[in-house]
Amino acid sequence: MSLFRANIERMAGYVPGEQPQDSGWIKLNTNENPYPPSPAVVEAVTRAARGPLNKYPDPLGTAFRKAAATLLDVDPDWIIPTNGSDEVLTLILRAFVDSTDTVASPYPSYILYETLGELQAARFARIGLNADWSWNAEQVATAQDTAKLVLVPNPNSPSGNLWSRAELLSLVPRQGVLVLDEAYGDFADVPHRGEFLREAPAGRVIVTRSFSKSYSLAGVRLGYGVAHPDLIAGLRKVKDSYNCDTLSLAAGIAALEDQRWMLDNTAKVRTTRTRMTSALKALGFDVVPSQANFVWATHPTRSHRAIYEGLKARKILVRFMTYRDVPTAVDGVLTGLRISVGTDAEVDRMLVGMGEVVGNDE
Amino acid sequence: MSLFRANIERMAGYVPGEQPQDSGWIKLNTNENPYPPSPAVVEAVTRAARGPLNKYPDPLGTAFRKAAATLLDVDPDWIIPTNGSDEVLTLILRAFVDSTDTVASPYPSYILYETLGELQAARFARIGLNADWSWNAEQVATAQDTAKLVLVPNPNSPSGNLWSRAELLSLVPRQGVLVLDEAYGDFADVPHRGEFLREAPAGRVIVTRSFSKSYSLAGVRLGYGVAHPDLIAGLRKVKDSYNCDTLSLAAGIAALEDQRWMLDNTAKVRTTRTRMTSALKALGFDVVPSQANFVWATHPTRSHRAIYEGLKARKILVRFMTYRDVPTAVDGVLTGLRISVGTDAEVDRMLVGMGEVVGNDE
Repeated sequence: MSLFRANIERMAGYVPGEQPQDSGWIKLNTNENPYPPSPAVVEAVTRAARGPLNKYPDPLGTAFRKAAATLLDVDPDWIIPTNGSDEVLTLILRAFVDSTDTVASPYPSYILYETLGELQAARFARIGLNADWSWNAEQVATAQDTAKLVLVPNPNSPSGNLWSRAELLSLVPRQGVLVLDEAYGDFADVPHRGEFLREAPAGRVIVTRSFSKSYSLAGVRLGYGVAHPDLIAGLRKVKDSYNCDTLSLAAGIAALEDQRWMLDNTAKVRTTRTRMTSALKALGFDVVPSQANFVWATHPTRSHRAIYEGLKARKILVRFMTYRDVPTAVDGVLTGLRISVGTDAEVDRMLVGMGEVVGNDE
Repeated sequence: MSLFRANIERMAGYVPGEQPQDSGWIKLNTNENPYPPSPAVVEAVTRAARGPLNKYPDPLGTAFRKAAATLLDVDPDWIIPTNGSDEVLTLILRAFVDSTDTVASPYPSYILYETLGELQAARFARIGLNADWSWNAEQVATAQDTAKLVLVPNPNSPSGNLWSRAELLSLVPRQGVLVLDEAYGDFADVPHRGEFLREAPAGRVIVTRSFSKSYSLAGVRLGYGVAHPDLIAGLRKVKDSYNCDTLSLAAGIAALEDQRWMLDNTAKVRTTRTRMTSALKALGFDVVPSQANFVWATHPTRSHRAIYEGLKARKILVRFMTYRDVPTAVDGVLTGLRISVGTDAEVDRMLVGMGEVVGNDE
């Protein structure tokens, strides 16, 4: 007899993208920023490492909250720093969702939301996306009526498309909270800065943000939630006392204070994204116009799995995605390649490999 | 109407010890190690800060697990690194405990276990400790019969006493798991090294360990769980993909590899503990013989709250504890002071302050 909870026993567990520990890979599979973090971040971590690491960090991350609040033009009580934006998502599920509650998120989209729902033994409802990544209006209406939480990444993954504020407002559940996952928000042509929080119904929206992507700090694990202080107060009850460490908080403050570095890097990513999109199209792919640091590429005739394997044999990693039960896809199965935007050199090598792979099969 | 789960709405939330952010305090309230971490740790963090922080960490912390496994003479699959030992405790509750399950822990003891139970909306049973911190045999038997999880800190907090392996073996629940929280284990005169895992029934015990205390790394947030791989596999399903960051994993490996530094510091703490115990006794306190980096001091006639306040007015922080519903205490309320073992200089200043405070009231 297993001692685990039934829902845990049943679960396969979320599988993150491959993280090869050896060198020599072109890693375009987990949407990391190809550029290093700001030198000010390295300096801040180095300084913090020489500080009193034997003491606990500030449990509320006050200095960090001030820096993030300044950027978003909100009060620091609207901010909760977390161990990656994964943690704030986990806290949200644990704070709001019982086994009788329904969690909803778009589909195809970020699968982690379903895993987090399973961990709470909650009900889960997919809000179908049409083949062009627009919303299925009927399923939006159902989610609005029945969900306790609606989780939406904006830009969406794997497609990279951005939804409008009007579309998002229609997703706030009548008896619940909309979670807007802006992990990729800084890569949009017009990046978000918390405007949505001021338009949405008070206390019914949580925005989550990450340092992993735009700030080049995936290794540091830092994210945060932004919401009305009543919501933040509830999330604080659920978090571990010292959920963020001294080093990552120092890194986060330094990163926020060097906006120029982040803006320069996200601008470079946008430029490369445009070029990469055209080149993939020239190789015969359909590519969704992306507002994120990755693109969703599908080939009308080739096996996406074979392309993924062909690239992997060349030490180039992209993300091969399979979504089942997609009514708009052939046989209900949507596959495709989610390819992160790397440096120009990385993207060039990927495109060469891609040309060989797509060419070889012909 | 609150949108939070009923159990979250009801909760007050765990209150960690005070963490003043200004300087000049003698901080003997949260059991931090008064000595800095190993220079090898500072070096490792500095090096990691110059490394690829834009990339995600190894999701399973393989290099760290090897280092911890070597120390404890187990296979690396027995180890799960976590964001402080707080996180492994949280993962354990989330993996094993449904709302119909019972969580049990000794009382008076570490109150966090009850908070973690509340977060899962689980039933909670206290296993009463006698006035001399020995177990109430009848309540141990009940817990053994009914609990899904029994959580025991060894050494115990706030008392600092250590329980024998025989006592702990009797706490393994018939249909559940014993969690042995060894956050303070390295301060015992004969520190633990995983021996208990080899004696206990296979797959029925999880040991948790922390870098916050003996390794002087409270600021870094790193801990780990040690258990049979079947249990570790279940905990991995619950954790966030990248729960430990590159910097803390590097710090942890360097800390484990410099055992000499940790052993020297824990030896100093033990020496100071002996002296501090005698001095507090000379001031009229009852002090439990401690195997941890703190002592539990009670005064037969004075108000512990007044002593705490008197010390705080002198910028000396100790932990004032109140435990209600303690059958063995007068009026059911046990109060006392849990005082961390600082440097000799810090302890001297605390003792001077204590002398003034206890003297002043007479």
